[in-house]
Amino acid sequence: MHTLLLDSDDVRANAPMEELISAVEDAFGAYQRGDAQMPAKSYIDLPQYNGDFRSMPAYLRVRDETGGEEWDAAGVKWVNVHPDNRAEYGLPTVLGTMIYSDPKNAFPLAIMDGRELTMLRTGAAAAVATDHLAVTDAASLGIVGAGVQSYTQLEAIEAVRPIEEVVVSDVDAERAAEFIDQFEDRFEIRGGSVAEAASCDVLSTVTPVESPIVDREMVGEETHINAIGADAAGKHELANEILLDAKLVIDDYEQTTHSGEINVPYSEGTLTDADIYSSLGEIVTGEKTGRTTEDGITVFDSTGLAIQDVAAAHVVYTAARERDNGTPFDLLGVADS
Amino acid sequence: MHTLLLDSDDVRANAPMEELISAVEDAFGAYQRGDAQMPAKSYIDLPQYNGDFRSMPAYLRVRDETGGEEWDAAGVKWVNVHPDNRAEYGLPTVLGTMIYSDPKNAFPLAIMDGRELTMLRTGAAAAVATDHLAVTDAASLGIVGAGVQSYTQLEAIEAVRPIEEVVVSDVDAERAAEFIDQFEDRFEIRGGSVAEAASCDVLSTVTPVESPIVDREMVGEETHINAIGADAAGKHELANEILLDAKLVIDDYEQTTHSGEINVPYSEGTLTDADIYSSLGEIVTGEKTGRTTEDGITVFDSTGLAIQDVAAAHVVYTAARERDNGTPFDLLGVADS
Repeated sequence: MHTLLLDSDDVRANAPMEELISAVEDAFGAYQRGDAQMPAKSYIDLPQYNGDFRSMPAYLRVRDETGGEEWDAAGVKWVNVHPDNRAEYGLPTVLGTMIYSDPKNAFPLAIMDGRELTMLRTGAAAAVATDHLAVTDAASLGIVGAGVQSYTQLEAIEAVRPIEEVVVSDVDAERAAEFIDQFEDRFEIRGGSVAEAASCDVLSTVTPVESPIVDREMVGEETHINAIGADAAGKHELANEILLDAKLVIDDYEQTTHSGEINVPYSEGTLTDADIYSSLGEIVTGEKTGRTTEDGITVFDSTGLAIQDVAAAHVVYTAARERDNGTPFDLLGVADS
Repeated sequence: MHTLLLDSDDVRANAPMEELISAVEDAFGAYQRGDAQMPAKSYIDLPQYNGDFRSMPAYLRVRDETGGEEWDAAGVKWVNVHPDNRAEYGLPTVLGTMIYSDPKNAFPLAIMDGRELTMLRTGAAAAVATDHLAVTDAASLGIVGAGVQSYTQLEAIEAVRPIEEVVVSDVDAERAAEFIDQFEDRFEIRGGSVAEAASCDVLSTVTPVESPIVDREMVGEETHINAIGADAAGKHELANEILLDAKLVIDDYEQTTHSGEINVPYSEGTLTDADIYSSLGEIVTGEKTGRTTEDGITVFDSTGLAIQDVAAAHVVYTAARERDNGTPFDLLGVADS
């Protein structure tokens, strides 16, 4: 028995988006039903390097009441944020390594690039939220912030809505141009202002800002917003009025109140528990309803959960095995077992 | 830049024992001085598989006040306990995978077999404790429990004391015979009773028992005991009278009171904080003294800390790089960076 090594190209090549979205939706459902274990992220703060490490372990079991395949999965993602990496080392700010294990005997089935995986599972979660919260005929998507996490927003959301028009906004014109280059064959895509992006049927904000850049009046009447950027205390992309007016859905209560889009107004007391409509898990399981005809703006506050990583790793590993991709390696010296 | 893959053979082949012991001693010192970060282990319990996973992240910085090399290191070990593995899957009960990262930019310098690493760092910690707590001329070592963790007890302890005579005791005669086979060229080694092992100058107990197997009267007057086996609530190898009479040193307060050798009498109130002499870190830094001429029995309660794993990984990685061992792999797709 070997451990399958999956580098960044392998992960990308073995990520069927519809299966990823389905698995991530199932993961939110499993978590809501109590079929997942997700200890709090452990942080190691290294101010001397302006960086941190995060350890994200999880287990989940997906039951299919309609006779589909049941599966379970476990693993840990070891990830970091080092904002000076590009300038100082020519490395991405966020790296990551995922160990994907068989729950029944703990064998490490795969070790894979966690950076690519993070982009994929973040896009997939936005797609799950968009599927439940955006208007059915959403055809336009605004992207604010054209960094590495923005590409999978478009790739995932187009799997759940008939997106034709894309408006991308970035303070860095070159970054916006690269994004447009990537997608101009498939979409009617152009650069634009934040306001132009925010007036689309769906908006994904993917920036690290700490002062809101999307104002209330910019947002379309029935726009669904995926607030992706905030992942630490102090980060804040959307004006408080948007969050207070919207049907507000979060991925996880602990994480969003401490480090998600809502963390600043929540810590100031401007936004309270009463302003949170539900978790994504409650919507996925049907305990709460997604968009109704009465709803205007909807917001999904995404911080990123370890169960998403494990679910995405399950899809990637399964696809790679089926296609005989990746590099088998006898890490544990038990290949003869 | 590549990630170095180190399989179980690579780990074993790049583990100079004296450097391991020194690094693990430095790690205990760094932890005591506040130069380490070690979030609590995260557990995932899977009763349906009679198993669990543990995520163990840590960072440590070793300062050398005498002009030696300073280093820091970070990483996470993903480890498990699945007692049915051998019978059901032909796999070891404990597997493990270690991701060893550069703290300054989070690059995963190495991914290595965590099972071999666990044995090595556990032996090294016992040697650190033995060096500070056993009589200087200790020449005999008793081993109770000849399983996989017992081998590095002898290999490490012989690096700090002039061990000549070894007595190994195991309920499984075959397991004891295998242990003797391994070492009979280098030591005067024989099988014996628990009492014979416990009368040696140094004793290491390495069993998973939940009812004490070493009685007070078996133990030599100045024997130092490394209590290695207990790693979960309910486990208990040494009679309470031994723990109460001994100079009692622990690796970590939280871990030992919850899952170490002292956890049972501690939870019953038979053993209290007043019965704990110090942590190993306090002795390593000189805040507390090790063995003095007044001391009789000494006990080191070892549960195993994430800082030991990171320190051991540092030694193994450094040795493997120097010798050009291991398998470079571009997991993150940044080899050109």
